Amino acid sequence: MADAGPDGWGWIEDGAMLSQDGRLLWVGARADLPDDLAGTADHVQELAGAVITPGLIDCHTHLVYGGQRAHEFELRLKGVSYEEISRAGGGIRSSVTATREASEHQLYAQAAHRALALMAEGVTTLEVKSGYGLSLAAEAKMLRVARRLAELGLDVRTTYLGAHALPPEYQGRADDYIQAVCDWLPQLKREGLVDAVDAFCEGIGFTPAQTRRVFEAAQALGLPVKLHAEQLSDQGGTPLACEFGALSCDHLEYLSAEGIAAMKASGTVAVLLPGAYYFLRETKLPPVQALREAGVPLAIATDHNPGTSPTLSLLLMLNMACTQFRLTPEEALRGVTVNAARALGLRDRGQLVAGQRADFCLWDIEHPNELAYYFGRNPLRQVVRGGAPRGVARP
Amino acid sequence: MADAGPDGWGWIEDGAMLSQDGRLLWVGARADLPDDLAGTADHVQELAGAVITPGLIDCHTHLVYGGQRAHEFELRLKGVSYEEISRAGGGIRSSVTATREASEHQLYAQAAHRALALMAEGVTTLEVKSGYGLSLAAEAKMLRVARRLAELGLDVRTTYLGAHALPPEYQGRADDYIQAVCDWLPQLKREGLVDAVDAFCEGIGFTPAQTRRVFEAAQALGLPVKLHAEQLSDQGGTPLACEFGALSCDHLEYLSAEGIAAMKASGTVAVLLPGAYYFLRETKLPPVQALREAGVPLAIATDHNPGTSPTLSLLLMLNMACTQFRLTPEEALRGVTVNAARALGLRDRGQLVAGQRADFCLWDIEHPNELAYYFGRNPLRQVVRGGAPRGVARP
Ligand SMILES: [Zn+2]
Ligand SMILES: [Zn+2]
Repeated sequence: MADAGPDGWGWIEDGAMLSQDGRLLWVGARADLPDDLAGTADHVQELAGAVITPGLIDCHTHLVYGGQRAHEFELRLKGVSYEEISRAGGGIRSSVTATREASEHQLYAQAAHRALALMAEGVTTLEVKSGYGLSLAAEAKMLRVARRLAELGLDVRTTYLGAHALPPEYQGRADDYIQAVCDWLPQLKREGLVDAVDAFCEGIGFTPAQTRRVFEAAQALGLPVKLHAEQLSDQGGTPLACEFGALSCDHLEYLSAEGIAAMKASGTVAVLLPGAYYFLRETKLPPVQALREAGVPLAIATDHNPGTSPTLSLLLMLNMACTQFRLTPEEALRGVTVNAARALGLRDRGQLVAGQRADFCLWDIEHPNELAYYFGRNPLRQVVRGGAPRGVARP
Repeated sequence: MADAGPDGWGWIEDGAMLSQDGRLLWVGARADLPDDLAGTADHVQELAGAVITPGLIDCHTHLVYGGQRAHEFELRLKGVSYEEISRAGGGIRSSVTATREASEHQLYAQAAHRALALMAEGVTTLEVKSGYGLSLAAEAKMLRVARRLAELGLDVRTTYLGAHALPPEYQGRADDYIQAVCDWLPQLKREGLVDAVDAFCEGIGFTPAQTRRVFEAAQALGLPVKLHAEQLSDQGGTPLACEFGALSCDHLEYLSAEGIAAMKASGTVAVLLPGAYYFLRETKLPPVQALREAGVPLAIATDHNPGTSPTLSLLLMLNMACTQFRLTPEEALRGVTVNAARALGLRDRGQLVAGQRADFCLWDIEHPNELAYYFGRNPLRQVVRGGAPRGVARP
């Protein structure tokens, strides 16, 4: 997975890697390993027969929330309409209520369980968004829980998504709520809880003008932005986000040619979320071929959330990205490694080259295309993070 | 999951079960457990906090085969047509070649790996079809391997699917091949390798007339039949299979009203295969509502095979059956328990009631609807098979 080889996979047959202080020092074919370097190793591990990839990166999740919505899933399949469920306090509102009511300890216990499931498939870096608290205290609580997940043995990047939904106490006062979202940001940043700022720009979310205010607040504090954009309609959120040099725009089913051009110009990553597409039975595909031709980097993520993507398998997203969106298996793997890192503004991981973090996965497979081919299979043998083996705990 | 309760789930709160000699002796609410029965137990296990379901049954798989087809998956996503792949020896032909060339030991090693993945999600009974050998020797080899999978700690039901595809040496002589398929059956049966007989009745498979000949051979030997029916077109395979009292008809996307009426009359189970539907990006849905209204039992299976459903997660099929086919979570669970048993002609398992086999799963969930709600999550805590705990080995 280092430099792209002739078949595009960057395949190194019978390879060797050296790491030091948590970083890769040398990567290449075993036969090319310089003797003087090999002699310096004080620990050698034989990894016979395994395929090695960078540690996986889930760059878009809503992993911290109270409760779950299996009952709502069941009701909808029994024919109860979304409106009826919503009127009965269901939908995103039920997650907001449960998140507000949960103690920090309860939220952590639930989120840790979910994070362990992702880690069991080789995830070493995880993005987690707020957005079910929708008050300063509850958003801060979510972000503290997200930060604490690092104790499990993975890197966490936090994203402030106060502009996720309108809380009931602001009903009919969306602009006031956006003001509050902006006002809370400096304190959250001071507490070290925010790595990036996100918003949900959509007919059922916030307008481009409201999104712009959130981004201006982020920019004023020097925080990078991301956007939930063009998922259900073309709102023009992507060109707006690109004005602010967004790290990524995510979903993008309804992305326009103008939006693609803007992403290309700003070097913004397209994060595709095939789990939500699948779960919502969407039929409008994101413009993958046009993004590919424009050279926009493609990433893939679980979008884990209780309402529209209750999945805990990043490997399954590889298959769904290929099967539904027609990514190639290699694009899918880059989508959860190097391009996912880029969607988080991280340049120190996602590739197996000297200088990068020594985060990698050993897989019991013959070729990396198997990671995308199977669905519902986990061939992980071992994870190494920062140069040290990590236990493969089942959640 | 015993008798259906008010909400249809057959839920027993704070339940208790007694088993003896591998069978359930008593199932009910703990408070109702008769003192004299409780006194006879020589081993008591507290299963606090777990949801218990019957052991899962995967009633349609092609688990035994040589090789895999990840490379073909990759080629297709790179734009190579099915015809080009087929001309280069790909497609089902490559699986036939690899299966014929593989030793029995090699086939077992590969299939065992796959079976362990299914078992890690609670599968206690597994159906396995032949159909990649397409010669007497190679079909027998596949079926022996399938039988041997029982050593892993699960029940295996074997299905003879000689009429799966036309082998190259019979090109242009489909009727002759069907004669051979019928001729091989008595010996395979004598060797104890055949629990049921199946065929692939389809434009790209065999005609109804050819299918009839296979079924007549099965009937003459007293073997029950099943059918791959109406997957890609309405061939009228279902009414034909029902004439022979088929245990199940499987796939059924193009099933007609006449076919549904025939299934109802013959008590045939409809086995839905959402993994193949997903992987092939089909758009024609099976007539679930009509089947439901007719009272035809619905089962669900992985259809694991290297060409059209390389999945090793039966739990994922629950979600896919709900998300794609609009089954309710309860129908989905019945589809991999009581109705899957019925699709295999088994009346001794699939329900937690006295007299049934003591095969059950303990799940770390609050409600069984969670088994269908999540996708790519395995909350299995423990499996009990024939009254004895089985290790939860990861493959
Ligand atoms: Zn999201
Ligand atoms: Zn099949």
